[in-house]
Amino acid sequence: MHFEITILGNGSATPTFQRHPSAQVLRVDDRVYLIDCGEGTQMQMGRYKVKSHRIMHIFISHLHGDHYLGLMGLLSSMHLQGRTTELHIYAHRELQSIIEYQMEVSHTRLRYPLVFHWHENIKGHSLFEDDHITVEPIPLEHRIPCVGFLFREKPRPVKLKPGVVEKYRIPYEAIESIKSGSDFTDSQGNVIASIDLTMPPSRQRSYAYCSDTLYNKAIEQKVRKVDVLYHETTFMHDLLERANETFHTTSLQAGMLANNAEIGKLLIGHFSARYSSATPLLEEARMHFPNAEVAEEGMTYAVE
Amino acid sequence: MHFEITILGNGSATPTFQRHPSAQVLRVDDRVYLIDCGEGTQMQMGRYKVKSHRIMHIFISHLHGDHYLGLMGLLSSMHLQGRTTELHIYAHRELQSIIEYQMEVSHTRLRYPLVFHWHENIKGHSLFEDDHITVEPIPLEHRIPCVGFLFREKPRPVKLKPGVVEKYRIPYEAIESIKSGSDFTDSQGNVIASIDLTMPPSRQRSYAYCSDTLYNKAIEQKVRKVDVLYHETTFMHDLLERANETFHTTSLQAGMLANNAEIGKLLIGHFSARYSSATPLLEEARMHFPNAEVAEEGMTYAVE
Repeated sequence: MHFEITILGNGSATPTFQRHPSAQVLRVDDRVYLIDCGEGTQMQMGRYKVKSHRIMHIFISHLHGDHYLGLMGLLSSMHLQGRTTELHIYAHRELQSIIEYQMEVSHTRLRYPLVFHWHENIKGHSLFEDDHITVEPIPLEHRIPCVGFLFREKPRPVKLKPGVVEKYRIPYEAIESIKSGSDFTDSQGNVIASIDLTMPPSRQRSYAYCSDTLYNKAIEQKVRKVDVLYHETTFMHDLLERANETFHTTSLQAGMLANNAEIGKLLIGHFSARYSSATPLLEEARMHFPNAEVAEEGMTYAVE
Repeated sequence: MHFEITILGNGSATPTFQRHPSAQVLRVDDRVYLIDCGEGTQMQMGRYKVKSHRIMHIFISHLHGDHYLGLMGLLSSMHLQGRTTELHIYAHRELQSIIEYQMEVSHTRLRYPLVFHWHENIKGHSLFEDDHITVEPIPLEHRIPCVGFLFREKPRPVKLKPGVVEKYRIPYEAIESIKSGSDFTDSQGNVIASIDLTMPPSRQRSYAYCSDTLYNKAIEQKVRKVDVLYHETTFMHDLLERANETFHTTSLQAGMLANNAEIGKLLIGHFSARYSSATPLLEEARMHFPNAEVAEEGMTYAVE
């Protein structure tokens, strides 16, 4: 089953024509979850073959333009393309007014139901859940309210070992019971233990998305041992003061956080427009955490 | 003096990744006027080397997303880039609420004054005037209120013929008076008529921008004899019914309008996403008006 991230945009607030603002999709099996939606996201989706009709849930971290300004255009296009399927948006509550007012002014009456879920109403550790994943909020610390997202795969099914159905002539109706732990008795009366017929389920994969935030120990706890962490590194550490003033993280800090949290892989992005090359930012992050990569626009990263 | 249009985007409501939504700039001398501002305009400005600090006036035809959704991002970027110069926006009044609410939610306090001029307050034939151009509204007929823009160059100055200053030893302080029509008396007492020393001013150039609209005879009157007319042609004429339903114009109609109005050159655009090639639309427009061209993204068209 797919569990992978595609980066649609990865620039910071001042876009350059080489870098688009924040947007990425998580693909789990045939589902596509959109995470942030900066200006131009729908064009980037076209460029990188992300089908908008597969998106049922959109997660917006905060209401700075570089993280949501592409949403209105995307919603309108979905409408023009004839969408009728319900769409859910997880965001701070002002986004609902922003969208609804613009729909009203443009005399647009969407053909599909648009359901808003306000971050302000989050209770406990769960933001969203379907049969594939759970999503938990990550408390971030930015100039305005900001939430990160931790996507965890749900327990995956036990599978039969290859060839056992043929070998022991297991009838179809016995399969679910074997997977649930029952032993199997064949036509000669031999009992074969469930454990000899099945493989343990694959490990549950996890992905954490931390957009704009100050470096923060609470994040470290929350993303502990995730497989892949995307973390913004707007500045290099020589601009720590600027990072603090603007509530951003440095590459060095992101590397430290990744190391302390014992994660699998770190993806960095959201670089200030002052950096024409990402290499120094990456080298800085790798000082503390070697398995770091730049989240490149258009690239897909499998979560293993 | 420059008087030229650069096309930043020219798609219709459903963007494709090859075509960006409506946005163009008119350059007159060193001034840049932005006309409509669809999603992604600021990235397109970067791509085609349009300097945002040269823009003092932005004209928005109507409040369908494909004509204004790039504005919020552009305004934010101007702020982040340190702009302090006043910026004027000409649009329907709801745009002010849309922008101001989003600024409030993102805790953005612009460093530069933003002045809104509501189309609802237009009196008579003038929308805007500076020392280079006048802008008149063109009444368009769309599903929501919509205004086109007619840019006319102001009378250009009389110039001295080349070489006359040296030939007649005209002192610097006499030049303005000669240009205003006074004759010149040289040091030997010879009188040289102003008309022999000067060239008539160049013709005043004009450009008309007609975004989304039904085909309409009133437009024909308004754009009479303009040098260049940009007109939307969302559909070909076999989809006339669809054009009427959605308040758009067909290529055939735009060609007829250009012919009847005796304009110089027709630029067409805003094609429905159903057309992968612009050639048939252009051929249809040329049936009535041969001097038609497709307004290509990234191309600059001099108004002669």
